[in-house]
Amino acid sequence: MIITPPPSQQPLPPQAKKVFSGIMFDVYQWEQPQFDGSIKVFEKIKRPDTVVVFPVMADGKIMLTRQRQPGKQEYIAGVGGRVDAGEDILQAVKRELLEETGYSADTFTLWNAQQPFSKIEWSVYTFIAKNLTKIAEPTLDPGEDITIMPVSFDEFITIATQPDFSEKEIVPLLYEARLNESAYASLKQLFAPA
Amino acid sequence: MIITPPPSQQPLPPQAKKVFSGIMFDVYQWEQPQFDGSIKVFEKIKRPDTVVVFPVMADGKIMLTRQRQPGKQEYIAGVGGRVDAGEDILQAVKRELLEETGYSADTFTLWNAQQPFSKIEWSVYTFIAKNLTKIAEPTLDPGEDITIMPVSFDEFITIATQPDFSEKEIVPLLYEARLNESAYASLKQLFAPA
Repeated sequence: MIITPPPSQQPLPPQAKKVFSGIMFDVYQWEQPQFDGSIKVFEKIKRPDTVVVFPVMADGKIMLTRQRQPGKQEYIAGVGGRVDAGEDILQAVKRELLEETGYSADTFTLWNAQQPFSKIEWSVYTFIAKNLTKIAEPTLDPGEDITIMPVSFDEFITIATQPDFSEKEIVPLLYEARLNESAYASLKQLFAPA
Repeated sequence: MIITPPPSQQPLPPQAKKVFSGIMFDVYQWEQPQFDGSIKVFEKIKRPDTVVVFPVMADGKIMLTRQRQPGKQEYIAGVGGRVDAGEDILQAVKRELLEETGYSADTFTLWNAQQPFSKIEWSVYTFIAKNLTKIAEPTLDPGEDITIMPVSFDEFITIATQPDFSEKEIVPLLYEARLNESAYASLKQLFAPA
């Protein structure tokens, strides 16, 4: 699978200089010509990309997760996390699926990829995984507390359009499925068990 | 009007130290105890808050804007921008309304306030303004190119749920109005001309 990074609304130009390297966030600056020819220093953040996966079980249930992290309110989310340095996108999603659920999958479909935020160089890749096999127990970080929550497709599109659902990027797609019969049918088909 | 900052999903703790000061973005770090008692350094960005306003004209049309910024794709948005240092929220929204449209307004209602992103200390305050008076010509920055686009309420909830609409924070509220008759009636009432 060839995975192309999604476009940014405001791409980091090649001449941008890194002015800070953090643990998670780096800061870049560049001189941006304005409409009147004057120059302004623009700033943009760069952070590791994120992978999200919605695993579809043999019975058609979709695995959501209920997650706690230190210092953060509880939330509902897909399975996923940050792409590690040097890791490719598909490796990252397979690793996160295994770590958080203990499952591997035969089929990964890239459902959505976007840069949600014009001022952050940050891509979010959202997958659907099918043909699951449980091959291990979950191995969570000391900063993770994750409970698997299998839901039907109809529950999924309702739960994931509530305020405590983490993956805001895909919320419009779920609302479209709730609004529109043909969007509903297409999305349900995409989430049909293999 | 007393405006309380909206809650963060992951508040910046008081002991967090600023490790970088940028033009727009500051970076903070702190030692965060994990669930097993171990310590990990967490990082979070802070940026100026944003105000957005949807002005309602006497004929019921809502002023949207079509905007270009250097190095960024064209987009549709409300009126608004960053809160300046030392400025209060209501001052900021009045200033942005005047700069971008040339209008003042008698009535500002805070429609929504949220921190959209747990890893960024950043509040977005969204207002509805009524009883408008044109008191000046717009005065745009050299980095702004803004065209006013008056739309009906029904056009608003359709246009603002398209991908090129900038204020993602309120998109779920607009989808709820498109989905649900009573949410539609309440929101239409909120946007009724004074």
